[in-house]
Amino acid sequence: MSRPLVTLLTDFGTGSPYVAEMKGVLLSIHSDLQIVDISHAIPPQDIRSAALTWGQVAPSFPAQTIHVCVVDPGVGTDRRLVGLQCGGQTFLGPDNGIFDGILQRWPASEQWELTERRFWREPVSSTFHGRDILAPVAAHCAEGIPLEQFGEPCGGLVRLNWPFPRVTGERIEGECQRIDSFGNVISNIPRSLLDELDWPEWEVLILDRRVTRIVRTYGEGQPGELVALFGSQDMLEIALVASSAARELQAELGTLISVVPSSRA
Amino acid sequence: MSRPLVTLLTDFGTGSPYVAEMKGVLLSIHSDLQIVDISHAIPPQDIRSAALTWGQVAPSFPAQTIHVCVVDPGVGTDRRLVGLQCGGQTFLGPDNGIFDGILQRWPASEQWELTERRFWREPVSSTFHGRDILAPVAAHCAEGIPLEQFGEPCGGLVRLNWPFPRVTGERIEGECQRIDSFGNVISNIPRSLLDELDWPEWEVLILDRRVTRIVRTYGEGQPGELVALFGSQDMLEIALVASSAARELQAELGTLISVVPSSRA
Amino acid sequence: MSRPLVTLLTDFGTGSPYVAEMKGVLLSIHSDLQIVDISHAIPPQDIRSAALTWGQVAPSFPAQTIHVCVVDPGVGTDRRLVGLQCGGQTFLGPDNGIFDGILQRWPASEQWELTERRFWREPVSSTFHGRDILAPVAAHCAEGIPLEQFGEPCGGLVRLNWPFPRVTGERIEGECQRIDSFGNVISNIPRSLLDELDWPEWEVLILDRRVTRIVRTYGEGQPGELVALFGSQDMLEIALVASSAARELQAELGTLISVVPSSRA
Repeated sequence: MSRPLVTLLTDFGTGSPYVAEMKGVLLSIHSDLQIVDISHAIPPQDIRSAALTWGQVAPSFPAQTIHVCVVDPGVGTDRRLVGLQCGGQTFLGPDNGIFDGILQRWPASEQWELTERRFWREPVSSTFHGRDILAPVAAHCAEGIPLEQFGEPCGGLVRLNWPFPRVTGERIEGECQRIDSFGNVISNIPRSLLDELDWPEWEVLILDRRVTRIVRTYGEGQPGELVALFGSQDMLEIALVASSAARELQAELGTLISVVPSSRA
Repeated sequence: MSRPLVTLLTDFGTGSPYVAEMKGVLLSIHSDLQIVDISHAIPPQDIRSAALTWGQVAPSFPAQTIHVCVVDPGVGTDRRLVGLQCGGQTFLGPDNGIFDGILQRWPASEQWELTERRFWREPVSSTFHGRDILAPVAAHCAEGIPLEQFGEPCGGLVRLNWPFPRVTGERIEGECQRIDSFGNVISNIPRSLLDELDWPEWEVLILDRRVTRIVRTYGEGQPGELVALFGSQDMLEIALVASSAARELQAELGTLISVVPSSRA
Repeated sequence: MSRPLVTLLTDFGTGSPYVAEMKGVLLSIHSDLQIVDISHAIPPQDIRSAALTWGQVAPSFPAQTIHVCVVDPGVGTDRRLVGLQCGGQTFLGPDNGIFDGILQRWPASEQWELTERRFWREPVSSTFHGRDILAPVAAHCAEGIPLEQFGEPCGGLVRLNWPFPRVTGERIEGECQRIDSFGNVISNIPRSLLDELDWPEWEVLILDRRVTRIVRTYGEGQPGELVALFGSQDMLEIALVASSAARELQAELGTLISVVPSSRA
């Protein structure tokens, strides 16, 4: 039988003792867990970044994985802690919008508010529910206890005001949604949208630059050339070959990115 | 039977190849170990930070965990390498003060100086005892070999000059002991001390600010408000709601933090 | 039977969701893998740094370890993905020079170009072969499938123009090859070269400084003193006791480091 898999996603910072405390609690309950760090480098309290990360990585994980996210500015207030199943996997965390990324990929299952104190660590602090509630719930979940035993079915989750790209006439208007460690500027414009519009040729506008070189991969342009391509999540991104597009363009999260049919002058 | 658990705490830096070398040595001896990274982001040679981290995280780990710390500015000199048992767990590292945090939580067990070369990796370098001595000792320890077989009983450990809070008249004087990734300013003043003094109301003085709003959790104040609360380790901390108190206050490790009964003017 | 060991070395950045995606793919195929992070802090597209890291850490890992490196600026172009065996371990990655460090330690085995699509994840993106090809190949490799089943034998690997130290008359000329998190300036001059020359006494020249204090370990000098020693990889390094030599000297990768017999004036 394979070892249950628990992943952790937090804004505690890489190397934070808070992460180690959660792992200690998990392994105290079930020493045979396989724990995978998704990331602890989410910017402090950045719920949208956490939601995007879960949406990006969860599809690569096997069924029955238990994912825990602790990006939880409302810890100890009346915000709910919830659990739900999506795509055959279990997701646990505060109901503040962090589930939005996975809910865009998979239909929502039933949801449970985590209210059953008998699974919690005692005493429960008012500032660290990741350690005192979510970690023990995840460990017991990994034993095969079904989600409904951890609490009550509950209503609609908090959703984020997610910036979807808009199509207005002959123009797609999107924005920068993520910048990776290479400085690639990743938009919220999916390949499927351009497939649908089926323009014979198109180009990308960002800040005061026009990117006309549409490539298949980073190494196709010349070093120093700005290119546009669909990245590994099938989202449109702008790259600077062998360098950082974000630095060159001074792009940030939220920077406008448009796509228009190519002008033939 | 569960897999033995070994944790690592170092100042090598996240992603350092020195950490990977230690893991390779551990897994070469005992491929079934579960290795947990406590942190590799301890500031270089910061013994006190390592001691605090061990003191914070060890209580969350299960009995029989083997903890290894390599914050070791004296490597290769005549400083001793020691092993001891505290709270049912085993701690291995250089005798330079790193054990001080756990020794404040648990009574000291007998201690052994690690002198038995037959458990070491050969040849032993003079600059990396983490890889050449501590990793192999930890791996053999995880097989169940008792600590006394690794060396000789030895006398008192090096202790740090730890800054405990002082109570003088109607004033507690403490200091900033840790700043977390959210910028929360964590003092060395435990909840138990305030419980004991039993002042009807109190406030916190830090730099030139007076913090009168005492809350239960971060989300209780208004965004931008300075609040004081007891964190997840039951130590008094100062937080700036939805932001970084350390940045706002320009607080640092060692910054004075006082608590006084509330003045009613 | 022990769990197969897979290591990951990338330039994705610590906490990158790309790393998590690779782990998800690995664990989806073979949930019992032990995954060890070598480092994800390789500077973007720095092939030489990746090659050095593999060369440094692989000798500490057990036989049969499967190492995966994704520092891959040419992803999706016609650069090859290859696998080879060295020192009883398996190495997988793009053929761009990353194998150079291990090839300096161990004789090259036969090499295979990874061409067998039946082991790949479908569809294969053009920008993330780490997730879509290398991770599934590594997971299947860990099941014991021999390397030759993953592709075709192939010819010589891309090699780096590696800066070996030169001996000219009574002078060794080397350079800074790595700077660790302590600021130790690590050269490409091995202890064996100085053993061979067998100079009665020698000193080190770096930038405009002369380092005459040759020690066995960091703690042997006075705080603030510049010392030279052989580090844990038996390479000559320059250290500043209790501080950072790199910062003090303003040394960088490539900074010239010479060794000459001691002058007796």
